[in-house]
Amino acid sequence: MGTVVESEHLVSFAPPRSFATTLKSDLKETFFPEDPFRQFRNEKPAARVKKALQFFVPIFEWLPKYNLKLLRYDLLAGVTITSLAIPQGISYAKLANLPPIIGLYSSFVPPLIYALFGNSKHLAVGTVAACSLLLQATISDVVSPKDDPALYLHLVFTATFVTGIFQTALGFLRLGILVDFLSHSTITGFMGGTAIIICLQQLKGFFGLTHFTTKTDVVSVMRTIFKNRKEWKWESAVVGISFLCFLQSTRYVRKRRPKLFWVSAIAPMVTVLVGCLFAYFFHAEDHGIQIVGELKKGINPPSINLLNFDSKYLPTVIKAGVVTGLVALAVRPFSKTAVNFNAGCRTAMSNIVMAVCMGLTLLFLAPLFRYTPLVALSAIIMSAMFGLIDYEAAYHLFKVDKFDFVICMAAFFGVAFISMDVGLMLSVGLGILRALLYVARPATCKLGKVSSRNTFRDSEQYPGSTNVPGVLVLQLGSPIYFANSTYIRERILRWIREEQAIQDSEGHILEHVLLDLTGVTSIDITGIETLIEVRRSLQANEIKMAIINPRIKVMEKMMASKFIDIIGKEFVFLCIDDAIESCRFSLHKSKHTDDSLPDSIIA
Amino acid sequence: MGTVVESEHLVSFAPPRSFATTLKSDLKETFFPEDPFRQFRNEKPAARVKKALQFFVPIFEWLPKYNLKLLRYDLLAGVTITSLAIPQGISYAKLANLPPIIGLYSSFVPPLIYALFGNSKHLAVGTVAACSLLLQATISDVVSPKDDPALYLHLVFTATFVTGIFQTALGFLRLGILVDFLSHSTITGFMGGTAIIICLQQLKGFFGLTHFTTKTDVVSVMRTIFKNRKEWKWESAVVGISFLCFLQSTRYVRKRRPKLFWVSAIAPMVTVLVGCLFAYFFHAEDHGIQIVGELKKGINPPSINLLNFDSKYLPTVIKAGVVTGLVALAVRPFSKTAVNFNAGCRTAMSNIVMAVCMGLTLLFLAPLFRYTPLVALSAIIMSAMFGLIDYEAAYHLFKVDKFDFVICMAAFFGVAFISMDVGLMLSVGLGILRALLYVARPATCKLGKVSSRNTFRDSEQYPGSTNVPGVLVLQLGSPIYFANSTYIRERILRWIREEQAIQDSEGHILEHVLLDLTGVTSIDITGIETLIEVRRSLQANEIKMAIINPRIKVMEKMMASKFIDIIGKEFVFLCIDDAIESCRFSLHKSKHTDDSLPDSIIA
Repeated sequence: MGTVVESEHLVSFAPPRSFATTLKSDLKETFFPEDPFRQFRNEKPAARVKKALQFFVPIFEWLPKYNLKLLRYDLLAGVTITSLAIPQGISYAKLANLPPIIGLYSSFVPPLIYALFGNSKHLAVGTVAACSLLLQATISDVVSPKDDPALYLHLVFTATFVTGIFQTALGFLRLGILVDFLSHSTITGFMGGTAIIICLQQLKGFFGLTHFTTKTDVVSVMRTIFKNRKEWKWESAVVGISFLCFLQSTRYVRKRRPKLFWVSAIAPMVTVLVGCLFAYFFHAEDHGIQIVGELKKGINPPSINLLNFDSKYLPTVIKAGVVTGLVALAVRPFSKTAVNFNAGCRTAMSNIVMAVCMGLTLLFLAPLFRYTPLVALSAIIMSAMFGLIDYEAAYHLFKVDKFDFVICMAAFFGVAFISMDVGLMLSVGLGILRALLYVARPATCKLGKVSSRNTFRDSEQYPGSTNVPGVLVLQLGSPIYFANSTYIRERILRWIREEQAIQDSEGHILEHVLLDLTGVTSIDITGIETLIEVRRSLQANEIKMAIINPRIKVMEKMMASKFIDIIGKEFVFLCIDDAIESCRFSLHKSKHTDDSLPDSIIA
Repeated sequence: MGTVVESEHLVSFAPPRSFATTLKSDLKETFFPEDPFRQFRNEKPAARVKKALQFFVPIFEWLPKYNLKLLRYDLLAGVTITSLAIPQGISYAKLANLPPIIGLYSSFVPPLIYALFGNSKHLAVGTVAACSLLLQATISDVVSPKDDPALYLHLVFTATFVTGIFQTALGFLRLGILVDFLSHSTITGFMGGTAIIICLQQLKGFFGLTHFTTKTDVVSVMRTIFKNRKEWKWESAVVGISFLCFLQSTRYVRKRRPKLFWVSAIAPMVTVLVGCLFAYFFHAEDHGIQIVGELKKGINPPSINLLNFDSKYLPTVIKAGVVTGLVALAVRPFSKTAVNFNAGCRTAMSNIVMAVCMGLTLLFLAPLFRYTPLVALSAIIMSAMFGLIDYEAAYHLFKVDKFDFVICMAAFFGVAFISMDVGLMLSVGLGILRALLYVARPATCKLGKVSSRNTFRDSEQYPGSTNVPGVLVLQLGSPIYFANSTYIRERILRWIREEQAIQDSEGHILEHVLLDLTGVTSIDITGIETLIEVRRSLQANEIKMAIINPRIKVMEKMMASKFIDIIGKEFVFLCIDDAIESCRFSLHKSKHTDDSLPDSIIA
């Protein structure tokens, strides 16, 4: 064991790094934590350009190595996901109150773009039910899709354009950090809530209703359904329930025998085809079963000229676009991706195959789907939604973390009973509140000596650990700064009061307080002032304060603010042992107590 | 050094505490960190009631012990603060566009209430310039104080009523945590910005203008002043500058000789009296120097019946009240409190003395102040404001912490160029953003062995520390949870990649990653899943992962979520030494490397 002087030299009092250095390092940690450019940093210029190109446009990486064997796998996967994309596209377009053909386009152009720039092998691009409903609910607030379908369509186009701009901006500005605030709990609750309200929307199709609300919350929808109970068409409901049973049974098959995944993958397509034949031969329309209606074949021209930036609608459109963008990042097209993976896709080529198939469908096959019964689409959507309600995850949250469960339920009930954006914001808000509480009320604990290991640990967690007479060792956690400095001061003073009582009862006098700053990752001016205040209160009670192992950023601030000069370098220690050694030294010299700290305490 | 089995038994795998226990402990830490009830917890019922009464109504504690000697001190202090409160009251009432008499009331009733319930000996209750201006700026948005002074007055009453309710609620709900988010930097910038705009408002009085804007920002006020330059009255300006010079010189005296604090304390009163005499004898009004005008004597009836909860104004009134309440908590009546302290006050009795003096003033002396020149009041306000611009604090912030400086400047420029509430929100928002970044991007570091102390420290901070071949020790900080889990995963994997390169170059193979969780104060489900993912990635690379010293809350979550079962208890260690001992054990057994970890490494 060294002496006091030696220990002082051990602690690194290196002068603070320059502002430019720390700023660069902070920005890098904030926006490029995974160090994405590592792979071409040490390359020669030519290789660096090539690697950078491959990094930003991954198709350059895999396409040159592509071969026929891979194509065989991707072809099968591509055809499989197309068979799912057609019914889903039509269904989700109806969910958004859009012409069915629009839904097919979402599996035509986007997959091509993803194949160029995307870096997942398995992701299948396509429609997401939650986004369709979100667009519908937001845009319906300003324009009725029934009264002015053209304007409504153009506003939806504009909103999706905003989504694209927003997501691109997130990527370029490295603001994926925003998505970090959508927790697993939020997403579980949000998906569950969305699934519930989407299922309720399907009752329109099930009961063959023509009047329906544009609101999405449970109360409004249930009220509409019961108000229009005279419109209920039982034939439609019977057909819908039959389709739903069929779809659910294929899901059950997949669950029992994962190899038969393709059964459930093509089930929606089978439903649509059976529905079309049924509607065509039995003249379903005459029996109150609505059908999709005319679908034009051919490829539409680009719709960029249809964008509508009228200032009257702009705020709503931007809101719809941004929220959709955030939700889309969190809630990926999961069902299709799972099918793509199970169907054995090898590269993003499967997306290209899907796009080609979809293009052919648009060019030649679209009119065939005109007889699709709406109730079949409703059954397809409902069946997909059932899979998104994850009771087990919610129960797991409840068991492990009650606050996470509350965050999840806030999203669930917010979405179900108010609206999708309110539910999302509520849940994210609670998450942020918790993050703030983490920093506003950081954990502190008293350390005791675990004698068998000559180390110090939380005395609550390790009740066998022992006190050091005359000394209190406190461990602080998290950053110390304005939002928690008052708390930390009060908490330290309370630990000291409690410890004084304990030491008193044992016949000792508390003379040293050691603050272990190992867990303190940063500190601001208010935090430093708080430590100075604590030291002043302690001095008034003839208690000395020392700090242990300040981390690099903390030490820099302490140097810059002259805190180290104020408390003196001899009160900064590298480890608890050094500090206690020094306490023993000063206790031996002090007039109050000559041997309150027996040698045996020091290992 | 123990064996692996022994170390496993050392770690505390106590079953998680019950939800009720942790909830109670969390709520207590959040709302009662200072344990306010400690003093009467162990008392008998009768004593407990008495102590509780004294705790909530502190006058019961000090009044029974009060004596004549204490009264002598408090009497002097009370009279001194009254002489400051009268001119300040009149001035700040003018600042809020209210009848001057209203300002006097704020040092009449509130001090009495404070004397009953307040627990500071030195605090002197009274008007705060920032709050006056804030009320004026907010309420003027909906009602012009010139066009409808009665309605304006009633709305201000209502706003202050809301402030009272809000502050009481904060107290009862223990939501002082809100005020924690007003950092020192925010307050420095906010005070400075407010001082600037309040000084600018005084140019109205200085130039004797009758037309003026209700806006507070620098640009609007300067534009108004130059637009009305034909109204400028040079006599008024000369008188104002003379008073200002007098007031500033007394402040200078106090600074040089702190014992002469009373010179600057009574200077405003002297200014008012001299101003009155001057205006009376020289008929100042005829020379373009405006005076306060009639002041009725006598005590007004309570104004509770004047409160106006008209829904048309309610949102503005509530906003004004709540923001004023927050600002008032952060920006105490500092000048008067300092005077009270310096004048030797002993108890809250000085506030009672002030209230009595103010009551007498209202009853008998108020009409004497009718001749007070407005420009004298402007000089008093300006002089007070100069003291609030704290260049040195801003410079200190700049030197120690650039982000704190930005937060300060956001408040300063936001208040000066936009409005007080926007400036405050902007600055608080930046503070919260920083708090979120703290948790979203927690510090991680690689630990190296400081051989002279047999301990492990940040290898960047202690470049002399040495690597352990085959082993990487990482220290994580802050809570691990949804908002930072992606970051932490990426960062850990990056540390591992970098370490693999280093160990490769030294001829070793990285086989063990030890995560030191000492600094991790809590974890949520997403955080636990992240650790599982990291472990999976490591397993794919034949690297073993172990965790060291999870704290009590973290261990509880890890037990509840079965994480400990997944990784196995034998991979949880109490300290780094134990973990490295165990690594050596497994390395010796492993077929890859037989002696990559020489004995000498283990202390």
